[in-house]
Amino acid sequence: MRKIITLTTDFGLRDGYVGTMKAVILSIAPATQIVDITHQVAPQNILQGALALAAAARYFPAGTIHVVVVDPGVGSARRAIGVQTPEATFIGPDNGLLSLVLFDRPGSTPVGKASDAGPFLDATYVTRQRLLSPSCHAVSLDHERVGLPLVGNTFHGRDIFAPAAARVALGTPLSWLGATVSRLAMFALPRPECRPDGTVVGHVIDVDHFGNLITDIESAALPVDGRVEVCGHTIAKISRSYAEGRDLVALLGSSGRLEVAWRNGNAAERLGVGVGAPVMVAPRQTA
Amino acid sequence: MRKIITLTTDFGLRDGYVGTMKAVILSIAPATQIVDITHQVAPQNILQGALALAAAARYFPAGTIHVVVVDPGVGSARRAIGVQTPEATFIGPDNGLLSLVLFDRPGSTPVGKASDAGPFLDATYVTRQRLLSPSCHAVSLDHERVGLPLVGNTFHGRDIFAPAAARVALGTPLSWLGATVSRLAMFALPRPECRPDGTVVGHVIDVDHFGNLITDIESAALPVDGRVEVCGHTIAKISRSYAEGRDLVALLGSSGRLEVAWRNGNAAERLGVGVGAPVMVAPRQTA
Amino acid sequence: MRKIITLTTDFGLRDGYVGTMKAVILSIAPATQIVDITHQVAPQNILQGALALAAAARYFPAGTIHVVVVDPGVGSARRAIGVQTPEATFIGPDNGLLSLVLFDRPGSTPVGKASDAGPFLDATYVTRQRLLSPSCHAVSLDHERVGLPLVGNTFHGRDIFAPAAARVALGTPLSWLGATVSRLAMFALPRPECRPDGTVVGHVIDVDHFGNLITDIESAALPVDGRVEVCGHTIAKISRSYAEGRDLVALLGSSGRLEVAWRNGNAAERLGVGVGAPVMVAPRQTA
Repeated sequence: MRKIITLTTDFGLRDGYVGTMKAVILSIAPATQIVDITHQVAPQNILQGALALAAAARYFPAGTIHVVVVDPGVGSARRAIGVQTPEATFIGPDNGLLSLVLFDRPGSTPVGKASDAGPFLDATYVTRQRLLSPSCHAVSLDHERVGLPLVGNTFHGRDIFAPAAARVALGTPLSWLGATVSRLAMFALPRPECRPDGTVVGHVIDVDHFGNLITDIESAALPVDGRVEVCGHTIAKISRSYAEGRDLVALLGSSGRLEVAWRNGNAAERLGVGVGAPVMVAPRQTA
Repeated sequence: MRKIITLTTDFGLRDGYVGTMKAVILSIAPATQIVDITHQVAPQNILQGALALAAAARYFPAGTIHVVVVDPGVGSARRAIGVQTPEATFIGPDNGLLSLVLFDRPGSTPVGKASDAGPFLDATYVTRQRLLSPSCHAVSLDHERVGLPLVGNTFHGRDIFAPAAARVALGTPLSWLGATVSRLAMFALPRPECRPDGTVVGHVIDVDHFGNLITDIESAALPVDGRVEVCGHTIAKISRSYAEGRDLVALLGSSGRLEVAWRNGNAAERLGVGVGAPVMVAPRQTA
Repeated sequence: MRKIITLTTDFGLRDGYVGTMKAVILSIAPATQIVDITHQVAPQNILQGALALAAAARYFPAGTIHVVVVDPGVGSARRAIGVQTPEATFIGPDNGLLSLVLFDRPGSTPVGKASDAGPFLDATYVTRQRLLSPSCHAVSLDHERVGLPLVGNTFHGRDIFAPAAARVALGTPLSWLGATVSRLAMFALPRPECRPDGTVVGHVIDVDHFGNLITDIESAALPVDGRVEVCGHTIAKISRSYAEGRDLVALLGSSGRLEVAWRNGNAAERLGVGVGAPVMVAPRQTA
């Protein structure tokens, strides 16, 4: 079966950057199936890249190779890594991009002191180093083993990540491409605050193409019968679909998180709200 | 031969939504060739989605499976449908998206009273129910037969339409995926008015990437030698190519409809004109 | 091995135009691997299309077929051409789009008088006719031999270029698709001025997705130890990576040209600078 390599970057589609990465992959591994996840991550926004990757990656067949490049530190001392999990291989810079696909695994524990800064306040900030789960294996990619002959300092997507992914697609074990590492840069998504009265206070962590506000409040944390408050607006109930609402609607979105949407409109624009804004869910009986 | 599945959506390219649909398709039908028609239909704009699909679909090989998702009613009572035509299979919500590929077929007749509202005035409005042509076969997709184990209410592109298309690509007959239906939601494109003096009055139905104004005036309705009036501007003749004009140019576009363009510029921006604006073609002798 | 056909256009992704070209290709040559280089060349901007193509094309496997359509003269007398080089086949309008992949080859010499107008001042302007290098072979595509039955005047991407590429992918020699031509429209990139004191004065020739300013100053022309001046700002040194700078940073970019970037920001927006702006590099000892 054709190996699948996915691409998630902040390169945009205007230049030849994405086409160049595909050229490198197909030159090394011609039978590969390349699938774009997105190339419109906001420039340098590691949190957004991590969210897009995590949302899509779980639906790909086992053995898929995911290349992720949102890389403000390209050419600096930050490592290039490859990580094998039980389901997939991930290739990219060691800057937190893989947090959401690696964090919640048994044995992945923090190392050192966490910073107070949440990732949504400064998307390039990485909270801490974290031990990789023993169920996974990571290497620091050695550019001499994986790269094209001339490796520059500005486009590791072309010079390291694409050829590394292509070599993995051809069957090269990760361990041949670099030395094993056990600690990776990871951030934690902010966790919503659960108050004694049952109120949950979370945050907007992403605004999607439709202007829907995606929060960090997952279904398990949602009161059975709650009302939602965001930016001075109250939404009386949590709906089952966008079409149930008239204007503002709160519902459980496709990634299992509470979303706030505007029916047939753009909630982020209408509310003037973006990433970081607080969202509160109160059990209705307390209202 | 590899089966082709095309995708036409309003999902944009910023999030993981499109990549997720591709993941689902390739997990079920790994040998499929996926082709994007567009993911930049304006959010919830069914007319624009129908136009993009109709323009491209006729050029695909027989047997192609087209998935179309512009779906403001996702999770409501609107049906999910699959339609087999003599040329292709179409999968999407039953909200008018398939109008332009199903409407003009023998035996497709309206049912019930039409609304006065034209689709370009409210793109989410569907004029009426219409009998499907006997040359086609449609089913109401049963999510238990086609979907992923957990079906949510906000992303049927992932949970119903993508897996349904993948199963059809593998050879599953549509009739196994749901019960036959004979009436579908369809809208009619506005028809230009043909006056006794030979003047034709139509409307802008789409503005393309270049800012070209696409009208509902088809070649058969065009006077042999006409002048065009739009928004107070007169264009003296109908040209054969964009390069023939100096600034404003009227010509028969690639979809067989009258277009108004601005040479090396954006007609919609320069004229301040959008979908719904009237366009008049008068035989030149009446001028 | 699957033949690769790449697409580089200014068609955008909003309409069905790109999907239609892919449909035509796959109808004729179903086993083809289609790769998008970009469809977001600014409308009618031949220079930008030429740059994107040249940046990516060199990384594709030998034998790749590149279709390039930025075609303000579609339907006019401009020729449709196919060019075979030792590495690849290029298909597109004869308007300068292929300049950067054909120019620097042995035996390619100018014919006639050059215009003073640089291409970055008027991107649709082609400087002069140029003899094709004897290492290449070009034909003027005959639409009756390559096209779909009905050839219109507005969408040669669909009616001529896509089917021509598909036929080449199937093994049809270029010489069967049209008569040999020896002169093509080509422009020269502006060459930076090298002053006696070692100062180099070049120009911004492109602004990429990140807002990085790409110049016409190649690595060979760069002083070993220089400072850069652009738009009243001085950058004290040429860095090795984006991450070395604090705000403005000058470095050798991925295409081998001097770039000016703003660390984690958009240099073009912050400096208010675009294509055509002068960029000066002075040897540091002269400062």
